[in-house]
Amino acid sequence: LLPDSVHIEAQALDRLGDVVAGLAVARCVIIADSNVAGMYGQAALGSVQAAGLPADLVAFPAGEASKTRETWAALADRAAELGLGRDGCVVAVGGGVTLDLAGFVAATYMRGVALVLVPTSLLGMVDAAWGGKTGVDTVAGKNLAGALHRPRAVLVDPAVLATLPDAELRHGLAEAVKHGAIRDREQLAWIERRRGALLGREEAALLELVTRSAACKRAIVAADPYERGERALLNFGHTVGHALERLTGYRLPHGAAVAIGMVAEAAIGEAAAVTEAGTAAELARVLTGLGLPVAPPAWVTAVDVLPGAGSDKKARGGRIRYALIERIGVPAGSGTGWTVEVPEEVARHSLARLWAGAAGARQVSPERNVI
Amino acid sequence: LLPDSVHIEAQALDRLGDVVAGLAVARCVIIADSNVAGMYGQAALGSVQAAGLPADLVAFPAGEASKTRETWAALADRAAELGLGRDGCVVAVGGGVTLDLAGFVAATYMRGVALVLVPTSLLGMVDAAWGGKTGVDTVAGKNLAGALHRPRAVLVDPAVLATLPDAELRHGLAEAVKHGAIRDREQLAWIERRRGALLGREEAALLELVTRSAACKRAIVAADPYERGERALLNFGHTVGHALERLTGYRLPHGAAVAIGMVAEAAIGEAAAVTEAGTAAELARVLTGLGLPVAPPAWVTAVDVLPGAGSDKKARGGRIRYALIERIGVPAGSGTGWTVEVPEEVARHSLARLWAGAAGARQVSPERNVI
Repeated sequence: LLPDSVHIEAQALDRLGDVVAGLAVARCVIIADSNVAGMYGQAALGSVQAAGLPADLVAFPAGEASKTRETWAALADRAAELGLGRDGCVVAVGGGVTLDLAGFVAATYMRGVALVLVPTSLLGMVDAAWGGKTGVDTVAGKNLAGALHRPRAVLVDPAVLATLPDAELRHGLAEAVKHGAIRDREQLAWIERRRGALLGREEAALLELVTRSAACKRAIVAADPYERGERALLNFGHTVGHALERLTGYRLPHGAAVAIGMVAEAAIGEAAAVTEAGTAAELARVLTGLGLPVAPPAWVTAVDVLPGAGSDKKARGGRIRYALIERIGVPAGSGTGWTVEVPEEVARHSLARLWAGAAGARQVSPERNVI
Repeated sequence: LLPDSVHIEAQALDRLGDVVAGLAVARCVIIADSNVAGMYGQAALGSVQAAGLPADLVAFPAGEASKTRETWAALADRAAELGLGRDGCVVAVGGGVTLDLAGFVAATYMRGVALVLVPTSLLGMVDAAWGGKTGVDTVAGKNLAGALHRPRAVLVDPAVLATLPDAELRHGLAEAVKHGAIRDREQLAWIERRRGALLGREEAALLELVTRSAACKRAIVAADPYERGERALLNFGHTVGHALERLTGYRLPHGAAVAIGMVAEAAIGEAAAVTEAGTAAELARVLTGLGLPVAPPAWVTAVDVLPGAGSDKKARGGRIRYALIERIGVPAGSGTGWTVEVPEEVARHSLARLWAGAAGARQVSPERNVI
């Protein structure tokens, strides 16, 4: 599920045409949301056309609300009108929504065509572009309709982060913190040392962050592409995180939900005697330093979050299992499929205690500006 | 893309519960069309429930018109309502439409869940159940939205063929003839010898036919799962066949279209000096003996069929390539990706000649009763 070729470098976007031309495809459809199409659509289109390939740019309305079966169907119909064949290529240029949505178009168009990913958000660069997951949301759940589809190439151009809104930069940093938390204490220490450069968008620092984080995610996916074991670690922070997203009607952004979720699941792990004491506090300190929330809005209670976790995709046969860590950089559960079962009341009490002690942080609200 | 377990045997349907229980899944959704649900739905449901698994039967309106993204979405939504999780299983019971449609549900539900196929048509048993192709139709084309998804198990119970309409039995035989034509002259001779028993639905003869044909298709898929070469052979008769289906608004059934297509493509191969002279005539004799058509309705001309072939999925970069045979049992194109390029005018003239000489057969019409 990992790409044949990876290009994480300055001016990577300019190389798109050469990369696509090297795939021996007959035609390209470049998919971007209405915002990204305006910023990078012409550059992408020009690069592919300059390489001698027929190409079209197709835009869809920006926003999570477009990540639906309806947009997926409309994009596929448009690709068919434009003459995309089995030997065609879909190029996704954008953030997580675009990578997931356009990836699902490529995965299912004539049973699968070539896919090239050009993430333009930090979250896309460190997370969504790696591992082959594609999908759209339905009323029944996030990514309920989806497929695994290997991209042929991934291009990461750090220059595009210059236009990323501050909040989205921080949301991407949350996933990078996760990579450090589950596997690489030094990554976490590095993020703390370079915090100023990262938040100040120094290109060299961002390039190094993406290179490190992408390598971490690729290593986990390579070891367990179909999530039968180790890949479950990537769900650290996501059981509570997904529940928070659902509970807030997805007004709480994914990166913020994962930040809150990591601290929550570290606390659950501490209560279950799986995680070293003090881990939740250390993660909270790092995340707060990056401007990320570490507790949900005040109206969210532990009871609200945990029953919802039962319908999370990690639930097996109705029991709740968590991807936990033993301590920063060291995952738990190596003998139990890299997840650990925690009794619901232990989890509930630990969250109630955690969030009762986070009165200040609990002022954040998705109805206002979340972070 | 081939199943872990294959059960082609009398009373196979009764074993469904044991087979599904062996997959370590938590819950089953059995999908069938409204006709098949009435005939075999309760037997399938009872077998799974008797094995101790929670299961539900979901029916959709019978007919090719249901093979759409809309039905796919409705089935997935229903599965979610019924509590199907990542550890769930979709069981498809039915003909080609059901196997393709329910297979696409399984391929895309939470990025893929376990799939068990129980074909109830001869076409499903010899063709659709093998090879992992799933999909639905859109206005832009057949199977335009689809995915490759490996079934975990396939169960073939020849007893269900007792209720299959005569026309559908013959349509299945067309694909079995194809397997003989592209790979196994003895299979073709056997079909001719056992014609009476096959058309008379003797269970032993049908069981042997399905066993042979399924083995042929499995061998080709095993050698080339992703259709980069040899699997293209399975498209023999399908370039012209698909064009005929499109041209008749899909009133010409697939098996009938493939029968006409095989004779047409054998004639094209003869005109291109690829195929041994007399092959088209021999195929026409065998197919006619099985009650299958060998020429399209009189209003269809070679010109109608061939430009349409340009949008066929086998077209590469706009040029038309055919999967052809050298002679019965021996494929052509081993050095050119198992397809052969034929100039359009050679193809057009050969078809015009063939169909001009088929005045009697050309009386068939999809507006009346096709075969």
